[in-house]
Amino acid sequence: MRLSRTFLPILKETPKEAEIVSHRLMLRAGLIRQEAAGIYAWLPFGLRVLRKIEQIVREEQNRAGAQELLMPTIQPADLWRESGRYDAYGKEMLRIADRHEREMLYGPTNEEMITDIFRASVRSYKDLPMNLYHIQWKFRDEVRPRFGIMRGREFLMKDAYSFDLDKEGARHAYNRMFVAYLRTFARMGLQAIPMRADTGPIGGDMSHEFIILASTGESEVFCDKAILDLPIPGEDTDFDSDLTPVIDAWTTPYAATDEMHDASAYEAVAEDARMSARGIEVGHIFYFGTKYSEPMGAKVAGPDGVEVPVHMGSYGVGVSRLLGAIIEAHHDEAGIKWPASVAPFHVGLINLKPGDAESDAACADLERQLTAAGIEVLVDDVDTRAGAKFATMDLIGLPWQLIVGPRGLKEGVVEIKNRASGERSTVSPQEAVTRLVGELAS
Amino acid sequence: MRLSRTFLPILKETPKEAEIVSHRLMLRAGLIRQEAAGIYAWLPFGLRVLRKIEQIVREEQNRAGAQELLMPTIQPADLWRESGRYDAYGKEMLRIADRHEREMLYGPTNEEMITDIFRASVRSYKDLPMNLYHIQWKFRDEVRPRFGIMRGREFLMKDAYSFDLDKEGARHAYNRMFVAYLRTFARMGLQAIPMRADTGPIGGDMSHEFIILASTGESEVFCDKAILDLPIPGEDTDFDSDLTPVIDAWTTPYAATDEMHDASAYEAVAEDARMSARGIEVGHIFYFGTKYSEPMGAKVAGPDGVEVPVHMGSYGVGVSRLLGAIIEAHHDEAGIKWPASVAPFHVGLINLKPGDAESDAACADLERQLTAAGIEVLVDDVDTRAGAKFATMDLIGLPWQLIVGPRGLKEGVVEIKNRASGERSTVSPQEAVTRLVGELAS
Repeated sequence: MRLSRTFLPILKETPKEAEIVSHRLMLRAGLIRQEAAGIYAWLPFGLRVLRKIEQIVREEQNRAGAQELLMPTIQPADLWRESGRYDAYGKEMLRIADRHEREMLYGPTNEEMITDIFRASVRSYKDLPMNLYHIQWKFRDEVRPRFGIMRGREFLMKDAYSFDLDKEGARHAYNRMFVAYLRTFARMGLQAIPMRADTGPIGGDMSHEFIILASTGESEVFCDKAILDLPIPGEDTDFDSDLTPVIDAWTTPYAATDEMHDASAYEAVAEDARMSARGIEVGHIFYFGTKYSEPMGAKVAGPDGVEVPVHMGSYGVGVSRLLGAIIEAHHDEAGIKWPASVAPFHVGLINLKPGDAESDAACADLERQLTAAGIEVLVDDVDTRAGAKFATMDLIGLPWQLIVGPRGLKEGVVEIKNRASGERSTVSPQEAVTRLVGELAS
Repeated sequence: MRLSRTFLPILKETPKEAEIVSHRLMLRAGLIRQEAAGIYAWLPFGLRVLRKIEQIVREEQNRAGAQELLMPTIQPADLWRESGRYDAYGKEMLRIADRHEREMLYGPTNEEMITDIFRASVRSYKDLPMNLYHIQWKFRDEVRPRFGIMRGREFLMKDAYSFDLDKEGARHAYNRMFVAYLRTFARMGLQAIPMRADTGPIGGDMSHEFIILASTGESEVFCDKAILDLPIPGEDTDFDSDLTPVIDAWTTPYAATDEMHDASAYEAVAEDARMSARGIEVGHIFYFGTKYSEPMGAKVAGPDGVEVPVHMGSYGVGVSRLLGAIIEAHHDEAGIKWPASVAPFHVGLINLKPGDAESDAACADLERQLTAAGIEVLVDDVDTRAGAKFATMDLIGLPWQLIVGPRGLKEGVVEIKNRASGERSTVSPQEAVTRLVGELAS
């Protein structure tokens, strides 16, 4: 991809309205643009990152045995009357009347609709366990949207819903998602800590939030540092096996948000292992039993032929919010430092002198070789001075920079820079390709 | 993927509410479920097809030089006041008041918002040409939603918007999309005919609809059969070159919807070449000059330094509607006949006797080999009688069926069936793999 042909509106000045670093950097690096309070357009680079995050979430949901479908954004109010939440939900729900004055709403979540889809076609315990998820835009009419896409009104969420015959089955479904979440966030370069949580308006009696640590986090969290060293479950995890040992390992060290904080339990943690910090919620999982299946009549026949309401759980990931969370965790003064797994491109190939035949040829050749190896390359072919090029490349935060200019080429070398570490090395073009392929191709 | 672990709610009976075959088959084959009038959930198989259609659209947009971004579904009313369309649009626009009583709407299209994004950051003709597109859910509050997803209220649309310095540039942008559309529909197994069209509420003075022929189409169309034999532009099309010859070839034979029909021009077509039929609109492209850029102040400085409003066009594809259109064009009494490019899976591997060790082993081996070749396999491992398995497989319409049973295996053979032609052949398992890989791997 050529920078000269890319819609990447970089802002020179720091936008005043942005209170936190991720919001500032998302605006400055041309990732998003605000269209109304809490409502954003995703510009090409922002969308590329969003899609990569979405794809990681999808792959880990599928790996854990969940099936993807897609529910609409607009829902009929009547469904929510069945669960009793239409009146209970309050002003965060965006209520709409259509041309025939029928009451509708823009879905803030989908427990009712998925329960309706389930009850319409599933009759027997033999079809269980089942976990259905979608990745869809939601709307919550926050009274005061802020922090850019971190607390927006229209946001992209993955929400999964599990259906099981009994509590034991539901517990296993819960554990699967717990493990899937550990893997999901780790793949994006985030250290997410599961914390016992309040269940809030979703209801139910078992719930964990997944929180990443960031100084701009909205909630205070307390934990035992031991949790930071636990290994992430591998790709080869058997999700049909008993996952209790993994869950036990991750829920044994103390970890709680301030809402659930137990000062005496925290004080039982060795003093040098205690950590209190600010955190950002990026995922939330719930078991809520028959809260929706009972009133909505989502029942299956058990092995004995008797119909019982299914046990359900729901499992959310804030897909669009994750962009902000990743930036909060990966940035410096100069800009973003994307982890390779979610970067809009892997390599920024800086042509220091576009128009110089030798530089152009060397860049074209490097681009071709890297692209052939499956590496995504953004070529800065814009005719500006080197300082501006470096500043832009640092700001947009591609993991690797490959710098090509006439002076270096005369000596047969180019420069590689790692954005995260700042480390630079001067190598031959061929060596540069070998190095980058080694680092990036997977 | 195992059928036994798949959420695929097949309906035995033909749903009464469905008036046209694509709607009936989408409901029966478990692709969609209605959640409110004109609002559908996409069940796993429907979503798989939708994503494949979306991806073909995306690839052809990118090939033609368009850049993807993503605008939100909810828009502020004020933007539409700038163009004068807020009052003009009528009841099809879903109007919403948020908790602060601010007027919002669920976007039925995005000319205003994209013009706003453009004017905020583009200043010079040097950044042109530019074509920005997104694939996003839209809402049009149809007074009488019908035909399933063909005339729904919430629907997925690709809409692209081009920006050029002058009419000549805009004409080239228009031609690019024209060619991209020819390729897009052909890749989905559709014969789409471009027809001169009315510009409607979008405005402007150059417009083509892309229409596929189907007896259930909502508009009557008239054309010269010669257009059916024109070659589709190749993958190697140079979109920077002059595309006028291609456009001329496709716009010379007579083709018009009834709104634009010119009886005397039609009668000038040789009598045996005349064709009148019903058609379904799957795409629509417009050039509308400065209709939005002028009132909204989207200007760039030209080479002479003088600011001029940009010339724009917009280019829509009904992504979700295409599912219905493809089914209308590809089905028979027994069910859907998906073209391989959009099929939910490529091969339905029918295990006639799940539980039989030899059949299970043969199926596992075939699945492994086909999957390794990049072929998507749905294994029917459900314990039902053969007749039901065949009926389901014909209904869901995967392009190839591979039938494995104990009797055949004793003789060292399996059966291959092509869903579209009905052709069957009995071959060794190894020969079956070779045949299917040859047909499907690309």
